[in-house]
Amino acid sequence: EINADLQDYSHKRYNILTGEWVLVSPHRAKRPWQGQNEAVSNEVRPSYDASCYLCAGNTRINGEVNPKYEDVYIFTNDFAALQSDSPSFSVTDGLLVAQSEKGICKVVCFSPDHSKSLADMAPDEIQKVVFAWQREYEELGSNDLINYVQIFENKGAVMGCSNPHPHGQIWSQSTLPNEVDKKNTQQLNYYKENNSSLLGDYLKQELEKDERIIFQNDAFVVLIPFWAVWPFEAMIVPKKHQSNILSMDTEEALLYAEAISVLTKAYDKLFNTSFPYSSGIHQAPTNGEANDHWHWHMSFYPPLLRSATVKKFMVGYEMFGSPQRDITAEIATQRLRELL
Amino acid sequence: EINADLQDYSHKRYNILTGEWVLVSPHRAKRPWQGQNEAVSNEVRPSYDASCYLCAGNTRINGEVNPKYEDVYIFTNDFAALQSDSPSFSVTDGLLVAQSEKGICKVVCFSPDHSKSLADMAPDEIQKVVFAWQREYEELGSNDLINYVQIFENKGAVMGCSNPHPHGQIWSQSTLPNEVDKKNTQQLNYYKENNSSLLGDYLKQELEKDERIIFQNDAFVVLIPFWAVWPFEAMIVPKKHQSNILSMDTEEALLYAEAISVLTKAYDKLFNTSFPYSSGIHQAPTNGEANDHWHWHMSFYPPLLRSATVKKFMVGYEMFGSPQRDITAEIATQRLRELL
Ligand SMILES: O=P(O)(O)O[C@H]1O[C@H](CO)[C@@H](O)[C@H](O)[C@H]1O
Ligand SMILES: O=P(O)(O)O[C@H]1O[C@H](CO)[C@@H](O)[C@H](O)[C@H]1O
Repeated sequence: EINADLQDYSHKRYNILTGEWVLVSPHRAKRPWQGQNEAVSNEVRPSYDASCYLCAGNTRINGEVNPKYEDVYIFTNDFAALQSDSPSFSVTDGLLVAQSEKGICKVVCFSPDHSKSLADMAPDEIQKVVFAWQREYEELGSNDLINYVQIFENKGAVMGCSNPHPHGQIWSQSTLPNEVDKKNTQQLNYYKENNSSLLGDYLKQELEKDERIIFQNDAFVVLIPFWAVWPFEAMIVPKKHQSNILSMDTEEALLYAEAISVLTKAYDKLFNTSFPYSSGIHQAPTNGEANDHWHWHMSFYPPLLRSATVKKFMVGYEMFGSPQRDITAEIATQRLRELL
Repeated sequence: EINADLQDYSHKRYNILTGEWVLVSPHRAKRPWQGQNEAVSNEVRPSYDASCYLCAGNTRINGEVNPKYEDVYIFTNDFAALQSDSPSFSVTDGLLVAQSEKGICKVVCFSPDHSKSLADMAPDEIQKVVFAWQREYEELGSNDLINYVQIFENKGAVMGCSNPHPHGQIWSQSTLPNEVDKKNTQQLNYYKENNSSLLGDYLKQELEKDERIIFQNDAFVVLIPFWAVWPFEAMIVPKKHQSNILSMDTEEALLYAEAISVLTKAYDKLFNTSFPYSSGIHQAPTNGEANDHWHWHMSFYPPLLRSATVKKFMVGYEMFGSPQRDITAEIATQRLRELL
């Protein structure tokens, strides 16, 4: 049984993966909204757009021509935030501390079809994206320069995506970014103390309780974590203890694709709109260590709260204090479950 | 001399107050933008709006009537995220950990004039807001329930502000929110080791270098911290070592008001728009301890990057990795300095 207080009164929940807290204010969901509304674009896009720099056969801003690709197409980001050939330097000048960072940034087109999103693609099409992520994780990870590979997608204009063509990105780099570092520490501490996987043990508990599970198949669980921050945040977790996505075999890759498909389709139904989000895969660093404490997972952070046009703002209190949410993880789970 | 590499190549900078890193990619400022544009509202607002629930004499949604206030007016938030009379409970059920959180949330109207923002107010008008913050910090802080008082403002629709009437908020609560907890730890460690103030020592270094100082008067410095995340993020720091805003005398309060005025006016000039931001004061907890390690400061996190309509999106990489910026703190300082 869900603890009733958690549905009625302000409380904070602990994120076992980062060691941080989220403030939950269930009673506040009734607050009226007179603030900013997001623009909704329900325009139907064509399958090919001559002005899109990601469509097959088109010329990019730097003059390169995209091949006539048929499923997934990957290239190095033309405006990469990280570069592999920048110089090494470090600054330690009293309390000013800086350090050069090298890396490789790539763009991953999910499909040549400009009109689609992952939610519109069949599981076997998404499986090809998964295979591409695996190849990139392996190739980038085996580069001496790279110790961490961040795979992510920004979907929708509200998430800073500048091109609606279905695509994601990979930023790989020499050191562990903040969020990965936190999860590395928390998982390592738990693994040392309990000799088992933090996320694996959490998953067992969630499967028993069945209060926050949206969907599962033989290899994956889609759930809203107890400590979710965004209103409809969700996580896809492999049932087996796998430290990175390379451990998945072909069949598991299809089941993973199915999980992505089920979740993104439910999202689109929720507010009857192409649901914006940022998603990302957190997995073991590629620093040559065993990293057995890592249990990889994919998270979705969607900003919408009440409708296609009203989002949750992570602003003043959230920036200076802690993230804050109104609707509870359990209510959000129920709403998404009903849409499967 | 500014290290030239920091202006040309990707690197990360260390935030001494939180212990986290920001990724800086100076070369990326040249990236073209085809993504979402924010709506600009340069409409001139009337001094009084009959439909505004914050204007003097108007009735709020719960039926209460605002007094005919003349400068600052404070009331308890009608949709408070934290309440003082909610029950105490805690959940520790395997890896599910939660804990009730009590608090008091208030709304602070800066002026009865609906048309103004802090940037339009005279320093002696802003000083009255500072006095009100001091009174609230003292009163809330002396409540047994409250161990931390977060003063903040969300300005502009893009920052989730639902009413353009000049106002901020105060969320006070029993425990330390994440960001405050990090700064508490970092300052405490430094204080124990060096027997001096982390931020005070940093300030000395910045004043000597004069590369990131926007403005100073006898009591305050306005600067862009070395580790700033948002494109035009800035910080107001008292020159004296003060752990909270109560230490300010009347004259210092006016100099603080002047610093706020100078910064917000420069912001408005930057893109010729009423510049949106979230601002917040980080200061000592009100937990009855000495908290001598704390050096209070006020930060401004404005989202705009290139113009009144193009903001920086903290999305995929930033959510899953680390915050990332293009324009450096030094260039941003120069641009703001020129507008004084
Ligand atoms: O309290 P308001 O102004 O209604 O709401 C605004 O500020 C709050 C505190 O930062 C946020 O939680 C909300 O998302 C935002 O819309
Ligand atoms: O790389 P893009 O799609 O041009 O840019 C988008 O994603 C990046 C990575 O999350 C962010 O740094 C940018 O702010 C955002 O607009």
